[in-house]
Amino acid sequence: MSKITSSVIIIGNEILSGRTQDINVQFIAKELSKQGISLSEVRIVPDKKEEIIETLNILRKKYDYVFTTGGIGPTHDDITSECISEALGVKYLINQEAYELLKGHYPKGELNEGRVKMTKMPKGAKLIKNPLTIAPGFYIGNVFVLPGVPTIMQSMFVEVLKYLKFSKPITSQTVHTNLFESIIAKSLEEIQRKFEDCEIGSYPHFDFTKKIGGVNIVISGKNVSNIKTAVDEIVLSIHDLGGKTKIV
Amino acid sequence: MSKITSSVIIIGNEILSGRTQDINVQFIAKELSKQGISLSEVRIVPDKKEEIIETLNILRKKYDYVFTTGGIGPTHDDITSECISEALGVKYLINQEAYELLKGHYPKGELNEGRVKMTKMPKGAKLIKNPLTIAPGFYIGNVFVLPGVPTIMQSMFVEVLKYLKFSKPITSQTVHTNLFESIIAKSLEEIQRKFEDCEIGSYPHFDFTKKIGGVNIVISGKNVSNIKTAVDEIVLSIHDLGGKTKIV
Repeated sequence: MSKITSSVIIIGNEILSGRTQDINVQFIAKELSKQGISLSEVRIVPDKKEEIIETLNILRKKYDYVFTTGGIGPTHDDITSECISEALGVKYLINQEAYELLKGHYPKGELNEGRVKMTKMPKGAKLIKNPLTIAPGFYIGNVFVLPGVPTIMQSMFVEVLKYLKFSKPITSQTVHTNLFESIIAKSLEEIQRKFEDCEIGSYPHFDFTKKIGGVNIVISGKNVSNIKTAVDEIVLSIHDLGGKTKIV
Repeated sequence: MSKITSSVIIIGNEILSGRTQDINVQFIAKELSKQGISLSEVRIVPDKKEEIIETLNILRKKYDYVFTTGGIGPTHDDITSECISEALGVKYLINQEAYELLKGHYPKGELNEGRVKMTKMPKGAKLIKNPLTIAPGFYIGNVFVLPGVPTIMQSMFVEVLKYLKFSKPITSQTVHTNLFESIIAKSLEEIQRKFEDCEIGSYPHFDFTKKIGGVNIVISGKNVSNIKTAVDEIVLSIHDLGGKTKIV
């Protein structure tokens, strides 16, 4: 089964300034994992035309899917849809279906310039419905365009999943140990070499006030039986080194 | 005053799989803002040699500074230092100062292979001290290499700041309004055009259970007096539109 790959572009000065903590990457990563799609790369770029266009054109050729979040609202700093049109070399114009949706939603006379802007998209874009605030996202080719506000983005991702190819889910098991990483490093490396289709990651954690720590070893992949065997070998090797383990 | 630019490379499968929520970007972004350094781009890449090398070589030429987090521990999936050596075309070898630090810290016989690995760096690297778990980070040229565990990374960033040029801090003021984004879009755009050295961002928020919402308008830049004038104009324009404002 061939690997399905993807990338995320977070468009927004608010993330780069540190004002806002991004939580969209983790949400999308988890949703894609369940569908067996690997999130291979993320880029966070500012609200700058050239940066958005260049990033999009690199990533849409490199990966099966590209998801963007942010920059599709009604204000001057919302330039994503225009940039995507330019990157794809298609016209940026009012999407009639989106226009009808917003026209039907707002009381007469309230479909102002800003709201009309939210109906402008690349020619040929197909809508992604927004159950919370009406203004839709869209997809065109392998590019999926979503808002930056997490609750709204999440409410739309259910529909996005319908348009994606899926593969065997990526699953994982986590072994926790009280041993230091440096103690288990060698055996982990040997086990990683044996299980080529599993990815073994080692993540230390520390509590400096309580002066305790440990390591979470995450074994992930698509072959559940290989994951299980790798977990068993890791547990055994830690016990051989005098450590404790716990499946978490 | 010319702009000082930077980028962050988050190295780690744990972020791309969704297992771990990254919080390093926000921390670094805030610290850099205070020094007047713009965070211009972030990339999250997997623990893959070619990806890390290519990303580093692009970003270190594009920006004044590059900060990496993750991948400098003792296990097989920690490949950052080796990749940076290769990207810079310098030898990857034991840093004597780092070796002495670790040798002095661990009881005799406990400086195992994994720990020695943490002293291997690009030739010419200078250490960034780690007050919490000893194993140092390093910098070479305009590249600063830090661990991924947030508490440890943060404890080392104080030292990093000493090695950076600084500029006038980037400050911001936030105006909150009860009006919808689409209502204020036009005036915001006009005000943005007038204040070229301020960046005006508009960030809606919604509480769908309470059915309330509003917009945070963030005015940022280095010229405090221009920010103040822009804020005043924004407040006035919102009042003209019948809205309420609050400086938050």
